[in-house]
Amino acid sequence: MALNSPLHGVVPPVCTPLDGDGSVDTASLTRLVEHLVDGGVHGLFALGSTSEVAYLTDAQRRTALETVVRVAAGRVPVLAGAIDTTTARVVEHARAAAESGADALVATAPFYTRTHPVEIAGHFRRIRSAVDLPLFAYDIPVSVHSKLPAALVRGLAEDGTLAGLKDSSGDEGGLRRLIVELGGAAARTAAREAAGAAGSPGFSILTGAELTVDAALLAGADGVVPGIGNVDPAAYVRIYDAARAGEWALAAKEQERLVALFSLVDVGPEPDMGRSSSALGAFKAALQLLGVIACRDTAFPQVQLSDDSVEQVAERLRAAGLTPLR
Amino acid sequence: MALNSPLHGVVPPVCTPLDGDGSVDTASLTRLVEHLVDGGVHGLFALGSTSEVAYLTDAQRRTALETVVRVAAGRVPVLAGAIDTTTARVVEHARAAAESGADALVATAPFYTRTHPVEIAGHFRRIRSAVDLPLFAYDIPVSVHSKLPAALVRGLAEDGTLAGLKDSSGDEGGLRRLIVELGGAAARTAAREAAGAAGSPGFSILTGAELTVDAALLAGADGVVPGIGNVDPAAYVRIYDAARAGEWALAAKEQERLVALFSLVDVGPEPDMGRSSSALGAFKAALQLLGVIACRDTAFPQVQLSDDSVEQVAERLRAAGLTPLR
Amino acid sequence: MALNSPLHGVVPPVCTPLDGDGSVDTASLTRLVEHLVDGGVHGLFALGSTSEVAYLTDAQRRTALETVVRVAAGRVPVLAGAIDTTTARVVEHARAAAESGADALVATAPFYTRTHPVEIAGHFRRIRSAVDLPLFAYDIPVSVHSKLPAALVRGLAEDGTLAGLKDSSGDEGGLRRLIVELGGAAARTAAREAAGAAGSPGFSILTGAELTVDAALLAGADGVVPGIGNVDPAAYVRIYDAARAGEWALAAKEQERLVALFSLVDVGPEPDMGRSSSALGAFKAALQLLGVIACRDTAFPQVQLSDDSVEQVAERLRAAGLTPLR
Amino acid sequence: MALNSPLHGVVPPVCTPLDGDGSVDTASLTRLVEHLVDGGVHGLFALGSTSEVAYLTDAQRRTALETVVRVAAGRVPVLAGAIDTTTARVVEHARAAAESGADALVATAPFYTRTHPVEIAGHFRRIRSAVDLPLFAYDIPVSVHSKLPAALVRGLAEDGTLAGLKDSSGDEGGLRRLIVELGGAAARTAAREAAGAAGSPGFSILTGAELTVDAALLAGADGVVPGIGNVDPAAYVRIYDAARAGEWALAAKEQERLVALFSLVDVGPEPDMGRSSSALGAFKAALQLLGVIACRDTAFPQVQLSDDSVEQVAERLRAAGLTPLR
Repeated sequence: MALNSPLHGVVPPVCTPLDGDGSVDTASLTRLVEHLVDGGVHGLFALGSTSEVAYLTDAQRRTALETVVRVAAGRVPVLAGAIDTTTARVVEHARAAAESGADALVATAPFYTRTHPVEIAGHFRRIRSAVDLPLFAYDIPVSVHSKLPAALVRGLAEDGTLAGLKDSSGDEGGLRRLIVELGGAAARTAAREAAGAAGSPGFSILTGAELTVDAALLAGADGVVPGIGNVDPAAYVRIYDAARAGEWALAAKEQERLVALFSLVDVGPEPDMGRSSSALGAFKAALQLLGVIACRDTAFPQVQLSDDSVEQVAERLRAAGLTPLR
Repeated sequence: MALNSPLHGVVPPVCTPLDGDGSVDTASLTRLVEHLVDGGVHGLFALGSTSEVAYLTDAQRRTALETVVRVAAGRVPVLAGAIDTTTARVVEHARAAAESGADALVATAPFYTRTHPVEIAGHFRRIRSAVDLPLFAYDIPVSVHSKLPAALVRGLAEDGTLAGLKDSSGDEGGLRRLIVELGGAAARTAAREAAGAAGSPGFSILTGAELTVDAALLAGADGVVPGIGNVDPAAYVRIYDAARAGEWALAAKEQERLVALFSLVDVGPEPDMGRSSSALGAFKAALQLLGVIACRDTAFPQVQLSDDSVEQVAERLRAAGLTPLR
Repeated sequence: MALNSPLHGVVPPVCTPLDGDGSVDTASLTRLVEHLVDGGVHGLFALGSTSEVAYLTDAQRRTALETVVRVAAGRVPVLAGAIDTTTARVVEHARAAAESGADALVATAPFYTRTHPVEIAGHFRRIRSAVDLPLFAYDIPVSVHSKLPAALVRGLAEDGTLAGLKDSSGDEGGLRRLIVELGGAAARTAAREAAGAAGSPGFSILTGAELTVDAALLAGADGVVPGIGNVDPAAYVRIYDAARAGEWALAAKEQERLVALFSLVDVGPEPDMGRSSSALGAFKAALQLLGVIACRDTAFPQVQLSDDSVEQVAERLRAAGLTPLR
Repeated sequence: MALNSPLHGVVPPVCTPLDGDGSVDTASLTRLVEHLVDGGVHGLFALGSTSEVAYLTDAQRRTALETVVRVAAGRVPVLAGAIDTTTARVVEHARAAAESGADALVATAPFYTRTHPVEIAGHFRRIRSAVDLPLFAYDIPVSVHSKLPAALVRGLAEDGTLAGLKDSSGDEGGLRRLIVELGGAAARTAAREAAGAAGSPGFSILTGAELTVDAALLAGADGVVPGIGNVDPAAYVRIYDAARAGEWALAAKEQERLVALFSLVDVGPEPDMGRSSSALGAFKAALQLLGVIACRDTAFPQVQLSDDSVEQVAERLRAAGLTPLR
């Protein structure tokens, strides 16, 4: 499907369920996509960091993306991460994603190597010209170890290279400055509505800051890419709807509930476990407990949550009014 | 004056005007304090980072703080930074600040040395027990190079060591989690009102994220410490009042105007000038242009803004509806 | 060829010459390998950071490695980088490298994702068990953004997972501690000679610190992987030979000459150019000036050196007694 | 005493013994200085990081420095750290140090605030002009969070602002480049001898990299500032003497013994203890075990080593042939 208006709303980064031997579990992934679409989300982001893209082989990436596209079946657009170190490698992923039916692409700045804004600009321009799909810049310094400069993003927005920004930088002040430079919250909302009517793509700002979505929407962001939206997509949709209705106190109340639920990422880390692994493991454990996916394993070499930790995840679900199957 | 309710509202970090030979210009500082109090601020933070505390000798710190206290004259409470590398040195500053009439103290974790949460807890406890004034923890990793762990802050809030947190960490998600753990926005607002009536100090959360104050207030922060609040204090008061009234769209609109004004920090850096110097220099240049202070010099060895840059500051002021005297 | 003694000596990271459209220039690469072998190097490291591995597609990696293996023709062993974000992807590169005839593999810890020592250990163990070639750990925090803990390396050395370490961490004190824990310089030298006679692989420590090779050899390192060894391999061989002969003042003098030559990486960066690009560009410019490779282009999106910068590279070559062809 | 030749040799950063209530124990400090001078050291560095300068009040700094100067009694020169956030504060410490009889000053770049090379140059120039003592730049990014640029150091060396550099940056490659730019190891040694004869101060490079002193001397450094030199000063003197005699294998052997001894810093950290505290605590525990100082306490808020850890320190001392009194 075409992104015929600026992408907005709740666009969860879709977890990639694995079976016990580490293969992509397409049956579980099918249920997860249905769970998300049923929750009312506005789009799906496959092959993002929360999808464990960095752990998936090219074949696994293809399997995961094709499954998401097939199950989404045009009900919502599917964004696909094209995540690799530099341009030529990213372009190969981008072509594969286009072949698999993605509606848009998401790419970071070069990583592993040190880079420079001029190089980053060239990087995005070449990806955009190589594959004819809307392109989102993915600003995630915790993985890429550089921050996309605001002036660079603005330039690439204005010249049409970028269709949007997925901001996982945590720099809310910088994001606010960008939004103001792009016209401000009110003007952007009006433009989004007009653009949507006209079928024009516009420029979309999606925040990855899943604990402050109400704030980001107040500031003028178009949507959110929440990892824990895998677990409770409908709650993020409620925040989004409240925000669009100007019901900010309600949006904040819903956000607080999700902040509390988010504490399930703290059940780890086990003593011998990385922080990232424990968060992904907790999301997957929650999805397993809710009956959405069959196996909670994260990809090797991540360490798995202990049963005790999973029991704590179950408690956090119950505290948030979600009912584990066991 | 006693902090007889949780500190809230707009508490600018008061710039320290200097004359041409680097001495504290108490006449300008007097005018600046009047400018802030006239703007409706709820408190004053002397000897913070924006006050150039790191550049001031002990004698200059005393002069600056005594001036602020004298001019404030009990109309608003005065917080004083006690900024130094470790506990014994901080305690000496804290005692001096108490003698100078500060109403509360603000201290960071140890810096220059590497530290540990257990040490940080001991540090704050000893400061609190050494000087009988409400104590705020100042979380400013850009200067201190460690982040205050949320669990540490919560523990020190609950045992009464800390009267509040001044959060300049930029970690809005972490701050949201802390607020939710402390009861959430609605409960905190209710408690603040009850505590104020009872004269109880409570626990106060002030954000230093001056570009997203509307968002922080929506999330449940009690107030803000905005550097550019030196230039336009009344605008921050308008955000605060709008937020308290639940007028979030209005708060956001005021915030956007201040985001635009904030761009005056970008007039530098000159080619041979640090980013921090240029921001402080721009604040002071704006205050000089508005007739509040006599000289825009920042403390040695900071490089001074060029006349061209100052002219750009003047343009930004005009664009924001503030009228330079020249 | 088998690595039938601990790998030692000068093992340059082989640059990957490209032609004007960005394809691997196998004719130039052939000349470069001959240039290195003629210089007396003891091994070749293909597909490392200096080889621009992060910029090469899988097909380009294969072409480059096969060329190096073919031209080396068993005269010296060929190590191949298997550089990717996590285990499953690295294993695919490792298998491809084995098929291409590599004699040993070089892999980093996981990157892009955050990781943990337990995960890193599992990562190396799985790579080792998946592909039956000697495995070197590549410690390069500037790219990977984590440092391999010494205890981890020692454990993986002792259990036979690792055949060696390529240390580009810059932590010379940490490296010294590791060497002492592994027996110290004198004992390691004796063991290396004994192991070599016995055909036993041993554990090899190669430093990437090309400006302090004399020091590393004095400390007990087995060899060096010098980027600028592409330009003047014989000089590094002279350092190595002097060190083995106990002629430390001579080794230091040769090192100083190479330190001076290394300043050619400073001819950039051009105003709009990254530091990494300018160093790689300078190496390639020097190789082109010396007639070894046909085209000095670095891979997209790196910015190319200006002609002025290349002229400065030529001057540095002349100052070091190397004669540019033009 | 005047620094009448470039400072060279072993210049330990003198620990500051404290008694049980945290006061400077001048009797223990007297014994420590005698221990160091007896060990043959060539200078003493008081009020450095290892001296816990960041933890000492101004009065304590004065007591410690005056004690070191008095006990040294002109037998070796005394360098004094003037450690504070920015210029005006550093100048006050520098004046106090001059009054206390220091022979030279050691200062870092500004910290807590962000800074810029132009500001750092102004900072050192003003300190130098304010207090007429030789000035050493202290490059310690782990504390100051910026690295002194080599070009800046070279410029300040050439214009006579700096008498030397105390390099604790860990960037051995950068140090090597600086040394080569300053003429190289052989030329510097010749110049040092000539300058010493002429009473000219020259420019002195001291490394803080205490685990690779042999390497630094081979590279052309003039001396070393080793923390663990407090414990075994004579061993560092043996390295220095071996290096000056060209006995590099002997120097390396002595260095290896000290690397092994240095592992006493690993007895901690205790679970609730910072890494820095445990290293300082281990140095002090060793000094107490050797009968040099009375109490091993480090300054508040550092956590103290457990008795178990101290027993491990004793074992490491015995393993190195040093005999604890108990």
